[in-house]
Amino acid sequence: MPLTLTPLIGIPLIQPGDDLAGILLGSMQRTGINLMDGDILVLAQKIISKSEGRFVHLSQVIPSNRAIELAAQTEKDPRLVELVLQESREVLRTRPGTIIVEHKLGFVCANAGIDHSNVSGSSGEPADEWMLLLPENPDVSAQRLRQCLEEAAQVSIGVLIIDSHGRAWRLGTVGVAIGLAGLPGLADLRGQPDLFGYRLRITEVGVADELAAAASLVMGQANEGTPAVHARGFPYQLREASFSELIRPKNMDLFR
Amino acid sequence: MPLTLTPLIGIPLIQPGDDLAGILLGSMQRTGINLMDGDILVLAQKIISKSEGRFVHLSQVIPSNRAIELAAQTEKDPRLVELVLQESREVLRTRPGTIIVEHKLGFVCANAGIDHSNVSGSSGEPADEWMLLLPENPDVSAQRLRQCLEEAAQVSIGVLIIDSHGRAWRLGTVGVAIGLAGLPGLADLRGQPDLFGYRLRITEVGVADELAAAASLVMGQANEGTPAVHARGFPYQLREASFSELIRPKNMDLFR
Repeated sequence: MPLTLTPLIGIPLIQPGDDLAGILLGSMQRTGINLMDGDILVLAQKIISKSEGRFVHLSQVIPSNRAIELAAQTEKDPRLVELVLQESREVLRTRPGTIIVEHKLGFVCANAGIDHSNVSGSSGEPADEWMLLLPENPDVSAQRLRQCLEEAAQVSIGVLIIDSHGRAWRLGTVGVAIGLAGLPGLADLRGQPDLFGYRLRITEVGVADELAAAASLVMGQANEGTPAVHARGFPYQLREASFSELIRPKNMDLFR
Repeated sequence: MPLTLTPLIGIPLIQPGDDLAGILLGSMQRTGINLMDGDILVLAQKIISKSEGRFVHLSQVIPSNRAIELAAQTEKDPRLVELVLQESREVLRTRPGTIIVEHKLGFVCANAGIDHSNVSGSSGEPADEWMLLLPENPDVSAQRLRQCLEEAAQVSIGVLIIDSHGRAWRLGTVGVAIGLAGLPGLADLRGQPDLFGYRLRITEVGVADELAAAASLVMGQANEGTPAVHARGFPYQLREASFSELIRPKNMDLFR
């Protein structure tokens, strides 16, 4: 069975409190998609964060001494650096323009995933001083949306929330899972013999990250008109899970 | 336009010298796919390496002193470690069972991508002593295959060769590009304004890696019956490129 990823069209700019499930259902109708059992909806973090009102205006942020110091080193706005520190457990590396952290949610990413692109304030402040934080608990966000969609469409589906992360060793960002409901993060192939009866060398596959990358490809980056992708044909059994399956424990990480 | 990834069915176990292009064309015919302009064929490294006869039997390998030492540290066969060293520029990290290297081809991966799973020898030696090296020049392999397919089908396509790599910070392997022809490795979105006219924060997307991850999801890992995936609807302009676009230069890497 093929895996088909369809960008959902006509999704408006999302505002705090918007009914995302309703918007997605409307968009699927316009795109000509009937939600079926086993389908997965993949959503850019940004529309979840916006619907949850995760905006902070820089004028509301008072930088700590540590933020001021780190801001000088990295040539960034001290107030933004303060937000990055508040959203993080640990700073791993810095260089001008970039602070690589372990986010409070557990994953490693640049600038705590805080976005200042494409965010509009509700009042007259300069829009480029509005920052957008990641959802507070993306697994819960995914689960909530999943329930609304499942009830409305009377189907059993998965919901995946993704962001774009840079990587060690390789250039270019790729889509990765930061929250999920109803689909596995990892697929454990340990113990499955290959065609010659050997145990497989590769044992765990980051299937939610692979789907995140696939959907990210379809979303593109420049066009907020496609922050949502419908996936059909995900070849692994759906189950209850958390994105945290995908986080490598610190003591198993040779590159921290 | 949706992105559709279709696993190609009925691909036999590949032997050195096999006509991969012919095999793929036959499989596409059976799968019901007519190759069209802009399509991309994604192939597991393993079938390329096999068709190019990249087998080494461990009995042919004489381990160096360095390999013997590293083998003791990592609890691996010294002959396999010798092969890993021969295929690499630099050892980055080791732990029992794993040697993370910079491969001669430039990317960072475990055990120099050498595979001992699912490889059959041609004579009577124990099959688990046959090792399979990566293709010598995967971009060239991809280009060669692309030309054969383009001539046979009179179309303009891309060919992507992928492997499964582990990652810093995250668990689970994901598909990544190790060779390509006719499609971009990176898409540079710098300078494209977003909906509010700001410059995008994320500027380069690892589109070939995203496609590799998508195809890897469809291939699975346990079943060598699907080492090839047909992709239609890749949303970036096809162009001449090399996988080396995706390699982060050492001096830009904070995690080496």
